[in-house]
Amino acid sequence: MSFKQEWIRCQKLTEQALEERLPPADLPPETLHEAMRYATLNGGKRFRATLAILTGEMLGVETELLLPCAVAVECMHAFSLVHDDLPCMDDDDFRRGKLSCHAVYGEAMGVLVGDALQSLAIEVLAKDRSLIHLQHKTGNLVAVLSEAAGSTGLIGGQALDIALVESNGSIDLHTVFRLKTAKLIQSSVKLGALMSDDLDEQDYEALCEYGEAVGLAFQYIDDHLDGEHLEEDLFRKATEFKDQAISAVQRLNGTDSSNLVQAAKFVVERKY
Amino acid sequence: MSFKQEWIRCQKLTEQALEERLPPADLPPETLHEAMRYATLNGGKRFRATLAILTGEMLGVETELLLPCAVAVECMHAFSLVHDDLPCMDDDDFRRGKLSCHAVYGEAMGVLVGDALQSLAIEVLAKDRSLIHLQHKTGNLVAVLSEAAGSTGLIGGQALDIALVESNGSIDLHTVFRLKTAKLIQSSVKLGALMSDDLDEQDYEALCEYGEAVGLAFQYIDDHLDGEHLEEDLFRKATEFKDQAISAVQRLNGTDSSNLVQAAKFVVERKY
Repeated sequence: MSFKQEWIRCQKLTEQALEERLPPADLPPETLHEAMRYATLNGGKRFRATLAILTGEMLGVETELLLPCAVAVECMHAFSLVHDDLPCMDDDDFRRGKLSCHAVYGEAMGVLVGDALQSLAIEVLAKDRSLIHLQHKTGNLVAVLSEAAGSTGLIGGQALDIALVESNGSIDLHTVFRLKTAKLIQSSVKLGALMSDDLDEQDYEALCEYGEAVGLAFQYIDDHLDGEHLEEDLFRKATEFKDQAISAVQRLNGTDSSNLVQAAKFVVERKY
Repeated sequence: MSFKQEWIRCQKLTEQALEERLPPADLPPETLHEAMRYATLNGGKRFRATLAILTGEMLGVETELLLPCAVAVECMHAFSLVHDDLPCMDDDDFRRGKLSCHAVYGEAMGVLVGDALQSLAIEVLAKDRSLIHLQHKTGNLVAVLSEAAGSTGLIGGQALDIALVESNGSIDLHTVFRLKTAKLIQSSVKLGALMSDDLDEQDYEALCEYGEAVGLAFQYIDDHLDGEHLEEDLFRKATEFKDQAISAVQRLNGTDSSNLVQAAKFVVERKY
């Protein structure tokens, strides 16, 4: 299968898994649940979920067992988008080609939807029925995801991002990218890897390096596509991180890492 | 020791534990970390932490092992207060006798501080150094706290609360109280109980009933003190739930529940 086909397969699995795990819209509080579904089931790329699934599958983990991780990283990502779009943050009325969550449901609901999606991301890791016999893993999974989301991860990156313009160069863009984007993308790889029962430490470290480098490549390309900064420079950096990512997974012991190599290439080649 | 003395002891332990576990204000992103400390280390009652500590101690758990639970419930509570105070929510510029978080640090930072405190609450349960040999408990602890916080708990309760006025009676106040306040207070009791290694199921159920009833009594008294609703009626209900809470812990097998009984009484007698 080509990487594009693998990605589409993972997207479909993730949509289905999210559909099943998001609270139904007729469960009270109905508006909150409806808005959580609106903000999440709306055609995202599911790149984070795809990395979690492909990493785990590469290490021999059953696909079914990787779906809670896929759902968790996508809920965490959706939480961050909903809050980033708020009027007091980036004030964006559109997201993924439609009205953003707060534009439809109001600002207060936007805050609460983000809050509830962060909470659901963790709850899925801690309680999912398919992980019920794997409770010994929960501590590690939750530690990885909550750290990636927290004040020295995704949320801290957003704090730096809003301070960036007025920082007169004391905050550098690379740090913002690392915290705001790369940590969560890296955590997707880590979660997939932690679901394996016999991963050695060196391989885990190689995957951590891969995850961060892919995350950085992803964000440099995003800014390149947005035309926000000097484009040539951004593209060059993205390419460097892609190369670093590929060389990291090629160190894996006796594992066919071709899907992850393709994923890294795809990140840099994408046009959207 | 009187309950008041026990409470003060638990408050001191909690302040110290929070001080140690909140990220230092000189760790980047500095403003976020400073604001997280401002929002949390500011003289709260620490009632939730006290319940977690007293419940665990009653069941023979070492006090030291209960501090991550105490920190977790207080961070979760602080998160909810910071977001509740936002201009788009209750729009409160004062909290606990000083300026609220967003009034000092701005609205965007208010959103991020709440987000980061929710994340820290979970991270403490999953990673605290004092729980490192108790990783088998993490799944249950995290499940309890994230469920209490989520869309059918604290966050869901806030969603119902903001819809209450316009609901024309389709949302009742009791449901709001149960979700918005009682679930997190109940989870404090549950976390303390789950730290015990030999709790039987009936005792756990009695403690769950106690936790919810104390939480409801607490919120009915809060509204009574605020003078928001018909005062007589609120006080009568608070008293009923206090009695239910006390009768629940008196069912515990061979355990001296006097501290929890005192806690329930104190909730109804308090004047602040």
